[in-house]
Formats: sequence, structure tokens, C-alpha cells
Amino acid sequence: MRLKFGMVGGGNGAFIGNVHRHGALMDDLAELVSGCFSRTMEKNLETAQKWGISDSARVYGDYREMAEKEAKRDDGIDFVSITTPNDTHYPIAKCFLEHGIPVMCDKPLALTVKEGEELSALAKEKGLLFGVTYTYTGYAMVKQAREMIDAGVIGNILTISAEYPQEWLLVQMVSGRSDQAVWRMDPARSGPSGCCADIGTHVECLIKKMTGLSVKKVLANFEKLPKEKELPLENNVQILCRFDNDISGMIWTSQVAIGHETDLLIRIFGDKGAIEWQHREPGVLRVTKINEAPQIYTPTRDYDSESCRSLSRLPSGHPEGFFEAFGNLYRGFCSELLKEKYGVDVGSFDYPTVDDGVHGLKFIDACIESNAKGNVWVEL
Amino acid sequence: MRLKFGMVGGGNGAFIGNVHRHGALMDDLAELVSGCFSRTMEKNLETAQKWGISDSARVYGDYREMAEKEAKRDDGIDFVSITTPNDTHYPIAKCFLEHGIPVMCDKPLALTVKEGEELSALAKEKGLLFGVTYTYTGYAMVKQAREMIDAGVIGNILTISAEYPQEWLLVQMVSGRSDQAVWRMDPARSGPSGCCADIGTHVECLIKKMTGLSVKKVLANFEKLPKEKELPLENNVQILCRFDNDISGMIWTSQVAIGHETDLLIRIFGDKGAIEWQHREPGVLRVTKINEAPQIYTPTRDYDSESCRSLSRLPSGHPEGFFEAFGNLYRGFCSELLKEKYGVDVGSFDYPTVDDGVHGLKFIDACIESNAKGNVWVEL
Amino acid sequence: MRLKFGMVGGGNGAFIGNVHRHGALMDDLAELVSGCFSRTMEKNLETAQKWGISDSARVYGDYREMAEKEAKRDDGIDFVSITTPNDTHYPIAKCFLEHGIPVMCDKPLALTVKEGEELSALAKEKGLLFGVTYTYTGYAMVKQAREMIDAGVIGNILTISAEYPQEWLLVQMVSGRSDQAVWRMDPARSGPSGCCADIGTHVECLIKKMTGLSVKKVLANFEKLPKEKELPLENNVQILCRFDNDISGMIWTSQVAIGHETDLLIRIFGDKGAIEWQHREPGVLRVTKINEAPQIYTPTRDYDSESCRSLSRLPSGHPEGFFEAFGNLYRGFCSELLKEKYGVDVGSFDYPTVDDGVHGLKFIDACIESNAKGNVWVEL
Amino acid sequence: MRLKFGMVGGGNGAFIGNVHRHGALMDDLAELVSGCFSRTMEKNLETAQKWGISDSARVYGDYREMAEKEAKRDDGIDFVSITTPNDTHYPIAKCFLEHGIPVMCDKPLALTVKEGEELSALAKEKGLLFGVTYTYTGYAMVKQAREMIDAGVIGNILTISAEYPQEWLLVQMVSGRSDQAVWRMDPARSGPSGCCADIGTHVECLIKKMTGLSVKKVLANFEKLPKEKELPLENNVQILCRFDNDISGMIWTSQVAIGHETDLLIRIFGDKGAIEWQHREPGVLRVTKINEAPQIYTPTRDYDSESCRSLSRLPSGHPEGFFEAFGNLYRGFCSELLKEKYGVDVGSFDYPTVDDGVHGLKFIDACIESNAKGNVWVEL
Repeated sequence: MRLKFGMVGGGNGAFIGNVHRHGALMDDLAELVSGCFSRTMEKNLETAQKWGISDSARVYGDYREMAEKEAKRDDGIDFVSITTPNDTHYPIAKCFLEHGIPVMCDKPLALTVKEGEELSALAKEKGLLFGVTYTYTGYAMVKQAREMIDAGVIGNILTISAEYPQEWLLVQMVSGRSDQAVWRMDPARSGPSGCCADIGTHVECLIKKMTGLSVKKVLANFEKLPKEKELPLENNVQILCRFDNDISGMIWTSQVAIGHETDLLIRIFGDKGAIEWQHREPGVLRVTKINEAPQIYTPTRDYDSESCRSLSRLPSGHPEGFFEAFGNLYRGFCSELLKEKYGVDVGSFDYPTVDDGVHGLKFIDACIESNAKGNVWVEL
Repeated sequence: MRLKFGMVGGGNGAFIGNVHRHGALMDDLAELVSGCFSRTMEKNLETAQKWGISDSARVYGDYREMAEKEAKRDDGIDFVSITTPNDTHYPIAKCFLEHGIPVMCDKPLALTVKEGEELSALAKEKGLLFGVTYTYTGYAMVKQAREMIDAGVIGNILTISAEYPQEWLLVQMVSGRSDQAVWRMDPARSGPSGCCADIGTHVECLIKKMTGLSVKKVLANFEKLPKEKELPLENNVQILCRFDNDISGMIWTSQVAIGHETDLLIRIFGDKGAIEWQHREPGVLRVTKINEAPQIYTPTRDYDSESCRSLSRLPSGHPEGFFEAFGNLYRGFCSELLKEKYGVDVGSFDYPTVDDGVHGLKFIDACIESNAKGNVWVEL
Repeated sequence: MRLKFGMVGGGNGAFIGNVHRHGALMDDLAELVSGCFSRTMEKNLETAQKWGISDSARVYGDYREMAEKEAKRDDGIDFVSITTPNDTHYPIAKCFLEHGIPVMCDKPLALTVKEGEELSALAKEKGLLFGVTYTYTGYAMVKQAREMIDAGVIGNILTISAEYPQEWLLVQMVSGRSDQAVWRMDPARSGPSGCCADIGTHVECLIKKMTGLSVKKVLANFEKLPKEKELPLENNVQILCRFDNDISGMIWTSQVAIGHETDLLIRIFGDKGAIEWQHREPGVLRVTKINEAPQIYTPTRDYDSESCRSLSRLPSGHPEGFFEAFGNLYRGFCSELLKEKYGVDVGSFDYPTVDDGVHGLKFIDACIESNAKGNVWVEL
Repeated sequence: MRLKFGMVGGGNGAFIGNVHRHGALMDDLAELVSGCFSRTMEKNLETAQKWGISDSARVYGDYREMAEKEAKRDDGIDFVSITTPNDTHYPIAKCFLEHGIPVMCDKPLALTVKEGEELSALAKEKGLLFGVTYTYTGYAMVKQAREMIDAGVIGNILTISAEYPQEWLLVQMVSGRSDQAVWRMDPARSGPSGCCADIGTHVECLIKKMTGLSVKKVLANFEKLPKEKELPLENNVQILCRFDNDISGMIWTSQVAIGHETDLLIRIFGDKGAIEWQHREPGVLRVTKINEAPQIYTPTRDYDSESCRSLSRLPSGHPEGFFEAFGNLYRGFCSELLKEKYGVDVGSFDYPTVDDGVHGLKFIDACIESNAKGNVWVEL
């Protein structure tokens, strides 16, 4: 049994649309049957043809039309994937929810907490699934970390250190290329935060999924570097934070950190051990039990939890990456939808939902406020 | 424009069949329309349904029937993927070639040089493309290595050190599980060599693709470890070799090397520099120019060659893995087929062919002979 | 020509005294001729004998007596090394300065800024050299980093990320051992700060030596973990800081970070590149020039600066460590003393002085104040 | 109680002499009182003064004179360190033995097996200690490896993979510098083998000390690279070998492997686990127990053996290096001498002896013969 889904966005070679598509198709739980990929119908059809959508009647020039018509079809889409720029997530998601169609949305969920909460309320009111693709939460070893933490391997958590340095923005500024820099540095399209919204929220959500801990308050500092450029949005962010139980944390994210591509690193320190994961080697978990030698866990092994093992598609030592992490998120979303809508049980897998998305927006808001007030503590 | 292809093998959850499928689908250059996946029609249809083959008439209980019927259809498959156990590659490939259908075959191409050469001759006689999926040759940084070597970055090659240690066979023996161990240790199904044929040939082909150098002679030593087990096939192989221009090399492959999952490592030493690549971090190339500090190359960067960059589907720092390496091989094969058969140009990408497969078989034969004769030099 | 020196502290097998001794002896610029190593004369003489001090008349039961008598001798010590617990640095250093004897003191210089400033003033008034052994500043690759930064390799510095996680305190608490934990957790002996004073100052000084930048203000957060233990001094410290030119930084130091022994890591990000150094591999400097592949610099190479090369005693690839870093500090101190006092020129090498020590004390004070006031910005 | 020793060689800034000196002095078990450091008396005295030898009567222009006179003194040296070029080890060692003076000799022991056996016989006849400084055997984690292997942690050893690639010779050839290249490439001074004698023997001895296994036969291949240079001695060596119990091994050593400074790597694979050590990070031991996650052992930890812990002088995480490895060899030699000659017990530590040195010479001889005969098996 395969779910039918449509996509809004993803045309013109946007890489993230293709990542969503492959993620959804990976485990044969869904097939792409409809879409509104670009602003022009011509490009729309081009993408549809390339991606094997046979029925051009299900290729739409406008997402509202798509939501309306698909909702009316007997064989209408089971869900929609939203992969458009950030400023459009809210109206598009709202429209599909209103037509009774579940949503899988790229992060951030929306530009403001108010928008996010509206979407959350609407999804609940309608009883519709709503997932948000915080990619990094989909890696197998992230799941393994969570299982070990829940099992008490590292004891009570004492403190958390996390960072996500990137270099691309500075590289693009210097090399004169624009690429993503244009819209990511445009507050009208990205919202009132740059780096914090773009990657800080990835860190916040990943910590939550790895540990079960939510950020409760923050003390944040934003910078626009190099200062002489007078940039519109911050690209270097330092955050002190407090999680549940007053557990401390420290987060650094940057888009101007030369030498770092997407070096997300999360380290969880407990009173009996520590667990560390970094995106550069996603198939590695560094686990230290107190007074023992650090261990290098890898996926698919007997010592891994069953949940972790179920998230790998290849034998040990065969690298899986970003596509597969996305695939795991879609597996979670599709599995729940299959069970709920069709009574088909293909297992159960965790994935970030609209509420995780709302919390991410609150996190951004609190950071903005803390920075604006001169680096003071702000509660979420 | 998408090619139509069929698959022989891949049923019953065999992972490699699914890897072939995803590899072929990844860039929308092909779609799966036919197959003979398993030995029973029931499982065949199950796989067909799971993989979205709508026309059950194109699901066959026998590969011979499949070759015959597909060859007769106006919309017959453009090529076949062969993902069955090693002992069946030869008859299946031969059958499809005889019916005029191009072949993409898992490695090894066949069990004997004679079989391989027959396939090669047949493909040439019929004018049919024939690819062999030596996976590791598909990684972007392997291509980057080749481009840099061809450009003289490391000067003249002096010596090569390569290894491919794995631990799985010993782990399975000890843990009492069989999994792959059964057929891989069965000479009737794997052929007269175990470790050398299974992974030694990967090393041999990867060196060829990274450097352009072919093995000319070998001095090999085979071991069946632990000795007291009296195993049927070797699982630890040490090889001294000579490449073109009498360049020396050393290869170690093992299936009993605890602590190593699939740790293929190739190091090419020249008189002006060195290049090293290991599978554990496939997105990293270690490049040293003489008397300079070693450098860590990654994919998609401005400093990479255009060919290398074209083999990545994600922005810098987003890990790609085994699936994508397979995708790159299928991209090469499908691109050539699209151009040749339909005049559609989607670029040109290198991939291993039947002749690489034949050379691999000669390499195995020479190693077997060298070992049998007491570790003497044997020419290919 | 060799300087004569004495040592206060270092008896009873205290490791740091022996490190000072080897550091001073390493390059044959000094010899140990006097000492007051322990509280009892018996142990004093034991150490003296072990360390080859032939004249027992120069082994003293009291440092005041030592200062007085050595000052009167014609062949009196050229300098004294102070390696006692933190609370005694100030009176001992003061005493030797008052007797006209230059001082090489373990860090921290003193327990309060006031004490430190008094020592600084006294040293200047007397015209005496006063070094402070911030060990990590002595590594060859730290010098290389400074030279490259000064040469503009990474452009203008944008931000700095530094950390120094250790695990020993938690390990000792859990294992029931005391060792160093006792006095390091005793405010009477360690001063009003634990982790910040012990290792935070190492980070602060190392950044200064690597970049030339001084901390101007801090926002600090102290924690005593695990909270239920109700410990006397903080052992986990998070600091936001501002250096000269309002350059931002982030420092994390911890003594309860399982999995980390002495993992000091400093990363300097500029608008043209970045330089990273970590203590775990002290002979490696990771250098990235914008849009180029990261490079791995090692000591003694042609591409290193002359200053860097002069700080290694072994050919490339032969690991040097903590002892040699100390040796480099002593080389700097002794070289200056040899030139100043005896007109002997053996080169010139940088080392941290009393003023670096005073700045370190101000840094601690500001962090304590910031934490006490609820994590607000405090100027140094 | 400190032993008195003298040194032959070490003048003119030769680094290895200074390493011997520091190694001998490190633990206060010996003091340098005599020497014949260089060929001219002037330089001799210069070194003596620099190194603090107060009695110039014990500085000799000729090693024979030194042996004779020191043997006659009541306070004559307890042992001699020989740190001269390879071709002089034999006559010097022989001379001191004949005068009843124990010897600590740099490796290789001599140029031929015959010479080595003569020294061994003479030492035994005279009842004199004779150590050979195979440096790498002195590292703490090498000792830890041996203890774990002896304790059965990795089970029965199946195979060994070792390598020691260096780049210096090619770097020096290309950069036009001579430095060490001159005498190391001169058969008259280095003996009939270059790379195999210089670093191959280090590998051979290290394997013996780590595992207890001796090489029984070899199949070796020598190369002089680049071939067009027509060099006098081999600089790239590939060896297949058999240890006790017919255990297989593979050794690669090179002096022309760009990108590698002194990258000695030893990997021991057993049927229950594996242990790996590399010189680049000497304080790390990678230990994998079958079907468990690999572990990273470091020195001084509770989980280390007492023998391992006794070989570190610093707390955990403080890097020790090459000097300290030498110090451990001298600690072993001096401890035995102190006990034997003076009844002073400061513990017992393993170190390589003249018999290890003889075995190393046999290893070189067998490799030379195997290569000369066209890569055939030759027994030691």
C-alpha cells in the first residue's frame, strides 16, 4: 500500500524539494502524484514530467487550486509536502489543512509563533497529521543516543554543549556569488532572524529529540559579521540556555565560520557518562561511560537498540547520509498516516511534529528578544 | 525521457537489489517496469507491487522468459539490472545479451575468466552496453582523485598501498548467525575464491579508476582464518602487485579483521604528492603536495573538478553515501544508453564496464594461481 | 653558560614541580642548585638528593630563609621557580622579589587582583623578570598560529570559540578518590573560583598569546555540578566575552565533562580564514583559507615560521608534549635573563609574564562578579 | 642513588644524542659524567660544558681511551650510551664490553648478524647488560597492548598488519637538502639495507614487544624510488611474513610516502578482538572486542594495567611523546642495572636487549636475501 502525495515547491532544481521527494519515496510508502512546483505552469509541467507524474491534470499553477481540487478527488493526495521558501510555509500549510489534507512541511514551520500556533490549533481541530522536517533528527545514531539516554546510560544530564558552525555565507559573500545568500539574508523571506532561525532551530530540536529536554529560557547574543558589511540579519549566534530541570546548555551557531561546512555537533554530559554526535560523521556516536574508555558506536550493530537498527537500510559500514535521514522522517510520518487512515501497520517511528515546530518558533522569538534587550534571560 | 528497465534478483528483501533500484531511479533517468525478482511467482508479485510495477504481465517467473518477452515488446525494457548471487550472473547476462538487451550487472561479472570473456565478446558483437557495479568507483571524491592524478598533482606514481579489511565474517561465525556467511563461503555459489573475489576485486577496480593503472602481475597469499575452523574459502588475502610501468602495490583484504566494517582505503603515492581516500569518510580526500601541509578536500567545492562536482546532489557538508555512489554508476550507464539509443544528451559519466569485469576475473585467477603455487609472481 | 635556580614546592612527588624542573633543564640553560621543596626538612633533603643537589646547605626548610640566604650568596640563584599550591604563590613570589630574585611562577599568579598587581608593581620597581607558566602557550603550533594570524592569513578576526572540558573532578567524586580534588575544591587554597580560575584562565591567556587579543568584558555563568552535591566551588563555566575591537568570543570550561581529559580547543575565525588548535593533538594546527581545502600543519616544516620551528627539538613526526611546552616557557624566561644579566644571547622567545598573570586574575574576578549578578556583562 | 654514565656520539647537535641524554636523565636514575661526543676535542669539550660535565678529564677524544680509562677509575661509568652512526656501533660496543662496561646502544645494534651475535656472546660471557633503544617499544600504550594481548582480550592472534611510512627522504631529495639523507643513503655507513634496516626493524621489534611474537620467515620486496634516480639503497619495502605459530603478517615501510612523517601503525587481529596503535597519537590505543563498539584507551586510567600506568609521568590527557618513550627504555635498563650492581630496587621495566637487536639484524638479512632471490620465502 502506498500513500499518494503532492508537493508544493521543489521546481527549478531546488535541492531541498528533491530531498523531500526522495525521502518520501525511499521506503515505498508513498508515491508522488501531484504538485505545484514552480510559479509558471511551463516549469511546473517540466518538473512533473521529470519526476514521472503521469497525469498532468494533477499539476497545478496555484497551491490553493491544488488543495481544493485534490481535496475533492476520490483519489486525492493523502498528504502534501511543502518545500517552498520560509515565508510561504504558513499560508500554504494553512490552506491544505483547511482542505483536510495532512502536511509534511520543511522547517521553519512559519515566520512567527502566532502563525505556528494557528497551524498547530488547526491541525488538531481537523485531526490532521502535521510533520516538520528537522532533518538531523532522522539519523539512526540520534535515535540510538536517545534510547541510551532514556535507559540511563549517562545518568542524569548535567549540561549540554551544542554548536552548528557553517561557512557558506561568508564564502558566498567573498566569492561574489549569491545563490542562497540572497533570500536567506532577506528578512521579508526568511523572517526576523537569519542564522538562529535557519540553523539554531535545528540544534534546539535535535537536542530535544536526543534528550527529551526542552529549552525553557535563553540568553542570546546575535552578530552580523563582518560588522562593516552592515548586513540585514544575524549570522553568528551565541546562546546560553536552560532546559527542563534547570539543566544548562550552550549553543553556538554561525554561517561565517570558515572551515566548517555543516558541522552540527551535540554533546550531552551526564553524571554517569556522555554521548556525542556530529553531523560530519553521522554514522558515529561517541559514548563514554564514566571511568571507562570512550566507545565508537556505529549503526546496525547488535549493541544498538532495535529502533536504531530499524533506521538503517544498509549493512554495517555502508555510509548513509542526508537523504536517508529525510527518509526516516517520512517513514515516521507515512507510517502513522498509513495506520491511522488505512489501518496498515508498517511499524512506528518518531518524527518532529507541528508542536516541535511551534517550540522552535518560540525559541527564535526568545533569542531575538534576549539579544534585543542586551543579552538578558528570556523565557520561552 | 526515462529509460525503462527490468531487474533480475532483488526479491526477499535482498539489500543489494534495492540499492540497484534506488541507484537507477535516483536521477530520474530510468523507471522500473519489469522484473524477475525471486524464485516463486508469489514473491515476485509481492516485490513488484511493493516497488510500484503496475503491469503484472511484466513480472516473470523465469529470467529467460523475461528476456524473450521483453525483447519482443515494442516498449520492452531498455536494459536489465542483474542483482542475483554470483554464480548466476553469467547465464542471466548472456541470455539478455542474446536477446539484444543491455546489461547492468552486479560484480563479479561471472565466476571464471572464460565466462567473462564470452560475455564481453557477446556484448561487443551485439553492440550492447554492459556495466558492472563496482560501487566504490562511483564516489565523487574518487573521481576528484582521478582528475587530480591525471592533472599531475602528485606527479609520477611511485607506489600504491590499499586495503579493505572487514570483520563481518568472523563476527557472524562467532555469533552463530549465518546471514550472508552461508553463500559467501560456498564455493559452488561464490566461485573458487572468497575474500579475494568478493572485496579484492573492489580494490583492484577502484585503483584502476582512481589512477588509470591496471594490475599486471600479482604475488598472493590466501588464508582461511581461524585455521582450526577448516573453512572452504579464503578470508584473509595479502597481495603484492605490479601495475603498468612496473609500479608497485600492496593490497590487503580481510573478512576477519575485528574493528573494521567496510574500511576500504586507497593511498596513491607519487613523486610530487599523495592522495588518500577511505570509504569510512567517503566525502573526504586527503591530498598532500610535497613539502606542503596535507589538505582535506570535500565534495562540491570550487576547488573540485567539474566532474567531481557533478556527482554530488547536495550542498557542501551534507553527507552522501553508498546509495548515491550506486546512483552515479547508473547515471553513467543510463546517460550513455540515452545518448546512444535515443540521442538524448544528459552529460557523460564514467562507469565500470564488462572489460573492467573481465580484468577483475583475471585478477582473481592470477591470485588463486599465485597462492596455489606457493606465493610466486603470476601475470594476468 | 647556565643559570642557577631554586625551587619552592615540588616535593612529595607533586607532578607539577617535576614538570617545572624538566622544563628548566631541558635546553641546558639552567641548573637546579637550591630548593625548599616540602614542609619538613627530611623530605626536603630527600628531594634534593633525588634531584642531584649536591650542596645540602642550599636546601632550606623555609622559603623566607631561602630567599634571604640565596640573595646574600655570591653564587646565589638567578631565579626561583614557584610550584606550590595557589594560595601561597603571592607571599612566596613577593618574598623573592623583595630579595631581588626573579620569579617563574606557576599559574595563577595569586588569589586576588590586588595581590597580583602588587607583585607586578614590585617586579617593575625592582626591575626583575617575572614569568607565569601558562603551559599551553608554550606549544610550537600555538606560536605558528600567532605568526600566521599576525601575517594576515585569516584576515580580520570575527569571532572566537574556545573550550576546555575536563572530566577528572567528576571521575574522582564518583570513584571516591580525592587526589587533587581536595585542595582544588577548597576555596581557602584555590581561591574564590574553581574551574574558572583553574582552567578558564588557561583559555583566556592562550587566546591572548594566539591572537594578541585581550578580553575586555565577560558575561559568565557558573555551576556546581551535580547540583545535589552542594559543592563549594564551580566546576562548569560558560562565558560570553568581548575582546579588543569588540570581537566576540565564547568559552566553555568544565571539570565534569565525561569523555574529555584535557581537551583544550581554540578556534579563531577570521574573514579570510580560520585557525584551530587542540591540546589532544598539540602538534597539529588546522588552517583553512577561505574557499580552500582545510590544511593540517605540523611542526618543524619548511612552511612553518622560523619561530615555530625553533620551538621543536625533534624531527618532524616525533611527538613532543607537555614537558616540552613547559621547556619552551623556560627557554623564553631563561633567554631573557641570560641576555639581561650576563649578556649571553641564545635567542629570544615569548613567554607569559606577571602582567598576563594579572590580567588572568581580572578575568576571574569579572567572571565571578558577572555570575553573582545574574549573568550580566562585566568589564575587566 | 644515581648511576653514572658516559656517551659516545651526540655532539654537533645530533638530535638523537640529546634524546638519549634526556631519556637517561628523565627519572633521576642516572647522571652524565663522561663522554666522547665528537671527532675533535674542541667540540667534545663544548658539548661537555653545555651538558654540565664538570670534570674535563672525563671528556675523551677517543672512545677506546674512554673505555680504558673509565674502566680503571673507581668511580668509572656504570654504563655507556652509544649514539653514533650505524657503522660504528659494533666496534664501540665491543670495546666497552671488553672493558666490562654495560652498553645502551642505538639501533641497529650492528651492520651484520655476525657482528651482532659476537656482541651478544660477549655481553653474556662478561655478564653485562646490553640494551638497544628501539624507541617505539617504550610507549605506555604499547605496554598496555601487550598486557591486554597476554590477558587474552583479543583471543588468539590471526594476522598482523603493520606499516611505517615516512616521507622525509623524498622531501629532502626534491628540496635539494641533504641533512640525514647523505649518510642514511650511504651503504658504507648505513649497511647493506636502507629503509628496511632503518625503520623496518623498528616495526619488527615493536610487533615482538606488543605481541610476544617473533618473525620466523619473510618474503620481501625492495624498491629504490623514484627508479630514474638510481639510488644506492632501497627506500620502499613490502614484506609478507610469518611469525611464531605460522601467524601471518604484512609490513610496509617507506621513506618516500608523501603525507606521512613517522606514521608507524601496528594492528593486531585476534579471534576475539583487535588492538591498534599508531605513533601519530601515541597516547591512544584502539581496542575492539568482537561485536562490541571500538574503544579508545588512553594512558594513566584505572582501566589500564599497572605496568602501563607506571610508564606515564603526567596526569591523564597531558601528552607525552618521543622523549618519554626513550625515558622508559632507560628506566628499564637503569632499573635492572641498579638492582644488579647496587641492590637498589626501583621497580622492573621491560626494554629491548642485545638479543632483540640480533633478531633485528637477522630480519634485515632475511629480507635482503628474499628480495635478491626474487621475492621468495626466507627463514630467519
